[in-house]
Amino acid sequence: MAEYTIRYAVEGSFEETVERVVDALAEDGFGVLCDIDVQQTLQDKLDVEFRKYRILGACNPPLAHDGMSAELELGALLPCNVIVYETDAGEVAVSAVDPAVMLSVVDNPALDPVADEVSDRLEAVLAGLPGATAVEATD
Amino acid sequence: MAEYTIRYAVEGSFEETVERVVDALAEDGFGVLCDIDVQQTLQDKLDVEFRKYRILGACNPPLAHDGMSAELELGALLPCNVIVYETDAGEVAVSAVDPAVMLSVVDNPALDPVADEVSDRLEAVLAGLPGATAVEATD
Repeated sequence: MAEYTIRYAVEGSFEETVERVVDALAEDGFGVLCDIDVQQTLQDKLDVEFRKYRILGACNPPLAHDGMSAELELGALLPCNVIVYETDAGEVAVSAVDPAVMLSVVDNPALDPVADEVSDRLEAVLAGLPGATAVEATD
Repeated sequence: MAEYTIRYAVEGSFEETVERVVDALAEDGFGVLCDIDVQQTLQDKLDVEFRKYRILGACNPPLAHDGMSAELELGALLPCNVIVYETDAGEVAVSAVDPAVMLSVVDNPALDPVADEVSDRLEAVLAGLPGATAVEATD
């Protein structure tokens, strides 16, 4: 697997973790503009069972404004997702899309400082969760 | 600008176009799970004026299930965004993120057929809009 995410294992239940992630994002000025319950959606639409899995679309308005002002089509890559899911071992993982990797597909150096700042801030949010341990993306 | 989107100019008003895009996606089995009014959000949060701009997060449940079964962290890159916005010339543009480009950051060949199918289907949805004309992403 390529390292396109910033990934942590955390302590606590899945539900607690979702709540903590939303709160920690809010404290750092990231609103959750999009909240997809993957398990529920796949149950409803396909009648299949899937692990607990949430996609939270996080947006920091000043940084989004800077980014979209420099690159009009950037909205196609926004918001920045933070995912929370149960691992095969029954633990809870939290990953954020790495904006620096995402923006590698956009050839616009004006976005580099914005991407770096978002990367640093999302990493700090995840690293601050209870029991957060960085996970190497090797599987 | 790198070509990370599939991009069309269309006929009709911004509001009509948003409605047509949502309807055309639905006809092809893509639900809109996320709908962000960028103009309104930036007005509310930052009190700044921005062009009309919507981010529609489109998800085809069977294809999403295939993709996430092959690549657990793929949710960090989902849903696939379709953006509708006003251009500087006052026309309406519709762009979809190109899943083939997005998935170039994921080193997992199992996703290639899923990415190709989503690319083809999003391209067909956009090309079928009234007056759709492909735009080269050169600016």
